[in-house]
Amino acid sequence: MLAFTQITASSWAPGLAAAPRVAPSRSAVSMDASNPVVIGLAADSGCGKSTFMRRVTGIFGGECKLNDIGRETNTLVSDMTTVICLDDYHKWDRTGRKSNPEWPDGITALHEACQNWDKMAADVTDLKAGKAVEKPIYNHITGELDPDEPVQPTPIVIFEGLHPMHDERVNEALDLTIYLDITDDVKFAWKAQRDIAERGATPEEVQAAIDGRKPDFAAYVEPQKAKADIIIQVLPSDLIEDPTGKFLKVKYIQKKSVTCAETPYLFDEGSELTWVPNGDKLTTSPPGVVIKSYDDEWFGAPVSVLEMDGKVDVLDELVYVESAISATGTKFYGELTEQMIKMKDAPGSENGTGLFQSICAFKIREAYESLRK
Amino acid sequence: MLAFTQITASSWAPGLAAAPRVAPSRSAVSMDASNPVVIGLAADSGCGKSTFMRRVTGIFGGECKLNDIGRETNTLVSDMTTVICLDDYHKWDRTGRKSNPEWPDGITALHEACQNWDKMAADVTDLKAGKAVEKPIYNHITGELDPDEPVQPTPIVIFEGLHPMHDERVNEALDLTIYLDITDDVKFAWKAQRDIAERGATPEEVQAAIDGRKPDFAAYVEPQKAKADIIIQVLPSDLIEDPTGKFLKVKYIQKKSVTCAETPYLFDEGSELTWVPNGDKLTTSPPGVVIKSYDDEWFGAPVSVLEMDGKVDVLDELVYVESAISATGTKFYGELTEQMIKMKDAPGSENGTGLFQSICAFKIREAYESLRK
Repeated sequence: MLAFTQITASSWAPGLAAAPRVAPSRSAVSMDASNPVVIGLAADSGCGKSTFMRRVTGIFGGECKLNDIGRETNTLVSDMTTVICLDDYHKWDRTGRKSNPEWPDGITALHEACQNWDKMAADVTDLKAGKAVEKPIYNHITGELDPDEPVQPTPIVIFEGLHPMHDERVNEALDLTIYLDITDDVKFAWKAQRDIAERGATPEEVQAAIDGRKPDFAAYVEPQKAKADIIIQVLPSDLIEDPTGKFLKVKYIQKKSVTCAETPYLFDEGSELTWVPNGDKLTTSPPGVVIKSYDDEWFGAPVSVLEMDGKVDVLDELVYVESAISATGTKFYGELTEQMIKMKDAPGSENGTGLFQSICAFKIREAYESLRK
Repeated sequence: MLAFTQITASSWAPGLAAAPRVAPSRSAVSMDASNPVVIGLAADSGCGKSTFMRRVTGIFGGECKLNDIGRETNTLVSDMTTVICLDDYHKWDRTGRKSNPEWPDGITALHEACQNWDKMAADVTDLKAGKAVEKPIYNHITGELDPDEPVQPTPIVIFEGLHPMHDERVNEALDLTIYLDITDDVKFAWKAQRDIAERGATPEEVQAAIDGRKPDFAAYVEPQKAKADIIIQVLPSDLIEDPTGKFLKVKYIQKKSVTCAETPYLFDEGSELTWVPNGDKLTTSPPGVVIKSYDDEWFGAPVSVLEMDGKVDVLDELVYVESAISATGTKFYGELTEQMIKMKDAPGSENGTGLFQSICAFKIREAYESLRK
């Protein structure tokens, strides 16, 4: 279940006192929901998707809340955005996955046989055509399949979950696809941090839990990596040995084939750059911060990469980093920093995960503005 | 002897067709020679000093020619500049160095005992005070000490040779000091290239010639490295094995204590940057070009470093590199590239030696404009 904190326009703090800025022209964003732009976000559970979604919906403003159906739902709506959790397309409930005549050994929620692809494809297609749908609900608390809920189209509809790109009908319909790639070492560090420190688990139990998911994850989730337009890859830091997973090397990878959003880059487009920011302008925890920008290949496809290793200490100073990155998709100088400060307590705000999720949010806005009819 | 090609204003080709530019305000440069700014350039012989001097005098415009005394001279004059060769302060002629009762084994021209320090100090002091001097001449062709020549002060007086910073009276008088540091491997490659390929020498002979100079060079010339304000250091390329010494890694090192000229940097002041320029904008010979900018220490003193490894193929495209370097001391966009193109056939134009010598020339102009009374 998405543990979603409601964000309202009134709770926004501009935060960025010193930077010169012009007011964002949010009124320019059309509310037309007749041809929604549909976005796919693939990620494993426990990988910070809910924070990512807050960063995305946050930039469009307005109140963002759970679908108003008077009962448990995973769907989040605001004037501009609808976020649909793909867990809702699980074919069986929790009991059904464990004691299923078709799967005597049980089946994980990651398995392709566990998803209702026809309904998922139909709903994506209908919502993209501006039609309301009645969609299933997987209740994360009870583990049961609840009665359908009505979902209205909004200008932007985001399908987030394990498999937005697995079924070709769904993948084809999506206008922009994103894969949040948490590498194994980081997954272990994060899970260990939580389960060992807070829940008294042993490292072996943590590893066993990760290993148990691995075959189906590798078979059905991971292959989507190659298909995505944008990949946020989270790796252990190269700068420091950090078993807690707080120092991270994060890559923002965008395929050159993407036409609905510009490719962000450091200082000079198409160059290979390694940047250790001026310590007088950016306060960092030792061993500092290294930011890179370069071209690479991703499963054979040409991509541009922005990379950040290490973490910053004073979020306001991110405006200095922002000023070095071009084509972020912001509408005014400092907007990226403003978004980061607005969510300053969210996980990843001090490292590349927060920065690149925010850039990704601007790319979704850019795609929307480029593709809306 | 400086093999000097005369440069006249009329022989200048603007060269830079596409780049937007404003006309240089050369008339703003005062011709006042009452308080010359004095510059010291230390370098070994055969290290490209004459090219360096052409790059320096070239940016001030006007005709640059040998001192008009009707006989052999090493002194170069233009309206704005006078370049004095410190070989002129040799105490003994060639014969005197070889058969000298004081030095039964002979003495090299590098030795401190071989220079007339008192006269050198007196001439620097007088010229700096705007007074004409009668200075000695060392005739490189005959190896003899010729009768003195009159030298008039000009707004900028450059003392170039083996020891501009050795004598503290001279060093103290100099407003800006530069050391051209050709490292041993590069010296060998250059000398081997010339002496083996063109003069039929053996590698052993080349090495012996270098080794013979080494003790006195190490004792009297090299220690000036620590004193210089600006150092251009020429090293073998890190990118490619090149025994011919054409692929070079060149560093422009400027002490932070320098106040009469800004410190050039790449993209962002005070940061550490590594830049591989976009191959679509800068044509390079494999293995390409890597440019860096970072802070460092030089004999304990804090310095800023610009570094370029590799070489470029199309000199016009240097305007792209120029646009990435700030505080070059140019007066209009493209001036650095224009200077490089003007001297396109000079040694080092395709690598960091030419680029950083040109920046150094602009720093001399900057120092002059900052220091003139």
